[in-house]
Amino acid sequence: MALKLEPGTRLVVATHNAGKARELAEILENRFELVTAGSLGLHEPDETETTFVGNALLKARAAAEASGLIALADDSGLSVVALDGAPGIYSARWAGPGRNFTEAMKKVEARLEEARAQDFSAWFTSALAVAWPSGPGVVVEGRIDGTLTFPPRGEKGFGYDPIFIPEGLDRTFGEIEPLQKDGISHRARAFAKLKAALF
Amino acid sequence: MALKLEPGTRLVVATHNAGKARELAEILENRFELVTAGSLGLHEPDETETTFVGNALLKARAAAEASGLIALADDSGLSVVALDGAPGIYSARWAGPGRNFTEAMKKVEARLEEARAQDFSAWFTSALAVAWPSGPGVVVEGRIDGTLTFPPRGEKGFGYDPIFIPEGLDRTFGEIEPLQKDGISHRARAFAKLKAALF
Repeated sequence: MALKLEPGTRLVVATHNAGKARELAEILENRFELVTAGSLGLHEPDETETTFVGNALLKARAAAEASGLIALADDSGLSVVALDGAPGIYSARWAGPGRNFTEAMKKVEARLEEARAQDFSAWFTSALAVAWPSGPGVVVEGRIDGTLTFPPRGEKGFGYDPIFIPEGLDRTFGEIEPLQKDGISHRARAFAKLKAALF
Repeated sequence: MALKLEPGTRLVVATHNAGKARELAEILENRFELVTAGSLGLHEPDETETTFVGNALLKARAAAEASGLIALADDSGLSVVALDGAPGIYSARWAGPGRNFTEAMKKVEARLEEARAQDFSAWFTSALAVAWPSGPGVVVEGRIDGTLTFPPRGEKGFGYDPIFIPEGLDRTFGEIEPLQKDGISHRARAFAKLKAALF
């Protein structure tokens, strides 16, 4: 066996986040036959690890074992320099069980005010993991740096996108077109590494 | 780039455990140029993940980033069925800072007595991770099932080896020859998967 993802491979996408699933599908360029974890009735494991790659791997391995298929998982989040990297791996948890990112973005703003932060630098990380059932797992990580802005701007994207202006642009990830975001995002950068490693 | 470990590659072995380093060197069959993390003065990161593969990956990634070389790390441990998988990822920690496995093995025995356990089944897990600097990480996991015996028997091996009788044998990992252990151990099984994936 070589560690290679052949075109047409049936892949379980181990995310229950619709925004992420859509972005992964766009990025995967119809190269694979994608099945969602939800459609297979897979249970989403607790994200107990302390790193993005650890959690992505945990999710991919769980989905691969439960489905018997090769699985792809993402773990990603926003890290704010003045908040010592928070919310980081807790980015989704800051949005609560209702995935209310309007509230999560307010929380980031409030924490920056509390800290009297002058530095609004932040970065997005995306870890992607591929796991073979009873076999190896592969992880990669992509990152994009940028600056936060308040109030949130734009209705595109998802999560913290409306407060994040990527370096080199003057609009937030919520304002640019999905295809433009897919070309430069942390997820696209992680995916480029995955492609180099496994395609 | 293909995910491949070419013969002769310079590899940092990210373990500060002499027993593990020796076993890895034996298993790697002189295929690579091995450098120990200790000889490079690398700091050993805290093992903060909740899984063997997570911790192996954490150590390999840290060593790869610090050294600029491809890194190989192991995380392994003993899981006891009647103790709900303990000590598991805490196997080394049960031995304390002085790495006193005589005490750690007594602790396992005491816990089994407290639990009035009839079932002495246990298994060893070895997770191996390879990480490329700023690049992907690959993990595999091997496992061997067996039965615990007290008091400890044999001076060979290391860690919990003297209380572990692998299935199919009547001697502990502390009693059999290193080369015999290398042929059947959890670490050998993990390594066979790594070989299939990357050699």
